[in-house]
Amino acid sequence: MTAPALLAIDWGTTRFRAYLLDSAGTVLEHVASDDGIMAVKPGGFPAVLVIRCGMWLARHPDLPVIMAGMVGSRNGWVEATYRQTPATARDLADAMLAVDIGNGRMARIVPGLSTRDATGAPDVMRGEETLALGAGIENGIVILPGTHSKWVQITNGDITGFASFMTGEFYATLLGHTILGKLREEPDDPSGFDRGLAAAQRSGGLTHQAFAARTSVLLGDMSGHAVAPFLSGLLIGSEVDAGLGLAQTDGEIVLIAEGDIAAAYTRALAARGKRSCTLATEGCFTAGLARLLDASTSTIKA
Amino acid sequence: MTAPALLAIDWGTTRFRAYLLDSAGTVLEHVASDDGIMAVKPGGFPAVLVIRCGMWLARHPDLPVIMAGMVGSRNGWVEATYRQTPATARDLADAMLAVDIGNGRMARIVPGLSTRDATGAPDVMRGEETLALGAGIENGIVILPGTHSKWVQITNGDITGFASFMTGEFYATLLGHTILGKLREEPDDPSGFDRGLAAAQRSGGLTHQAFAARTSVLLGDMSGHAVAPFLSGLLIGSEVDAGLGLAQTDGEIVLIAEGDIAAAYTRALAARGKRSCTLATEGCFTAGLARLLDASTSTIKA
Repeated sequence: MTAPALLAIDWGTTRFRAYLLDSAGTVLEHVASDDGIMAVKPGGFPAVLVIRCGMWLARHPDLPVIMAGMVGSRNGWVEATYRQTPATARDLADAMLAVDIGNGRMARIVPGLSTRDATGAPDVMRGEETLALGAGIENGIVILPGTHSKWVQITNGDITGFASFMTGEFYATLLGHTILGKLREEPDDPSGFDRGLAAAQRSGGLTHQAFAARTSVLLGDMSGHAVAPFLSGLLIGSEVDAGLGLAQTDGEIVLIAEGDIAAAYTRALAARGKRSCTLATEGCFTAGLARLLDASTSTIKA
Repeated sequence: MTAPALLAIDWGTTRFRAYLLDSAGTVLEHVASDDGIMAVKPGGFPAVLVIRCGMWLARHPDLPVIMAGMVGSRNGWVEATYRQTPATARDLADAMLAVDIGNGRMARIVPGLSTRDATGAPDVMRGEETLALGAGIENGIVILPGTHSKWVQITNGDITGFASFMTGEFYATLLGHTILGKLREEPDDPSGFDRGLAAAQRSGGLTHQAFAARTSVLLGDMSGHAVAPFLSGLLIGSEVDAGLGLAQTDGEIVLIAEGDIAAAYTRALAARGKRSCTLATEGCFTAGLARLLDASTSTIKA
């Protein structure tokens, strides 16, 4: 077995994931649990780290430890102030915040990023900066679908801007609490997705097209089984249209996603004439942290 | 006292309102209760009508009775099939559905309207057709804000098209069930409304601008007190921009609304350079039904 070179920790709102990586970024061992930051009491972070990774820390006393994600938020271990775009990997690496994980040993927390669009409207992300760097592209867009989807612009390998969309949260909320949810029948009919994609390009906007879905069911134009996929297509289509409008789209388009979500965004992009490739979240995370370790100008070790 | 000429009933989802009108459309007497159609058991509609209006019906055995609203829906007294646009007042009057209200006496139910936009997407309304006719304009747009706002196009006095927007339902749902609601502080700071109106015209769409509101609070750019008014401005601004894009806007713009809602839409329209006038719902309803009574080519009486 090759020697471990980094303990990479993805510490999010609901999940804790730790990876022991070798110098090539290969995962040697890993652990995951439900110790997301919401489940950790104030001051309880060092203890959770020891419970989940104590054996590795003891076995490898000089191993660098880097954490990313909501662990660096106001409700996390400690708040790592957002760094502004544009940001190189080195900028982010040198802005990492050191925290004592016991007996004077230090770990680093990757800061999130903030940006402002042309109108001055602010945006933030935390955790996605690491994934986006891990996608490894020189020029293009990295799309991270989710509750709050992110579109990250990469220029010459640096993060030069990004935009968030509440796509996942709108989907769950509208389906859970409006007349659209009442009309939904299961199992879902996936053909509704393409209808939603098409509706996203019609005039009237989201609130009009969402009502049209309701009316289509009422008048027998569309089955209740198509309602949820329609809403998904409408929201993802709207996100893709807006994202392509905001971004420089002459480079690569990389999706960091899995399964149905990856398929849905690939289909939505293809419907707009855009080819994309999909990378798995875990691989981008470990590659992103390995890249930050390499980029750091200071020595990161225990 | 002048003689009653019409018993006009606005029977909606949650409220029952009846007006005894003279031949000039003036309200002589009125009654209101919580006997909306959701509170009435199947088959229970004639009994509710007698409880609320029995004295009037007995006193005026020849009085025409016309009902509008959700009473004509699938879950109402009886389903009055949607009439398609374009529709004149006479079209709607002659399509009224007669129902027996006891001892062979008949009342009429105004049908709702359906329409299709240029792409074939359907839309429906029920109750708003009567209000829109009651606005009494020859050419222009009648806007009926609400849970499902309606923009009704009037051409030469006829209803030639309309569009719905889930503005009110989106507002309540997003504020009630997303991170935006968690950030809201009360009392509301009304200055957020204009910020939302401005955001509606920026790129990125609803899901992006809604997230920007959250970020603005997080970064201290905006107070939590401005969140709800911001969301209101964002949604109403989006509706107004889309509505003005769909409609012929060279005629009058009439709002049928009250209080804060009327003020919000007036402000949103003014921000887009459009003057509007506001009419009260009750007056439009009674005027609309009086107009339908006049327009009918058949004799409407008991």
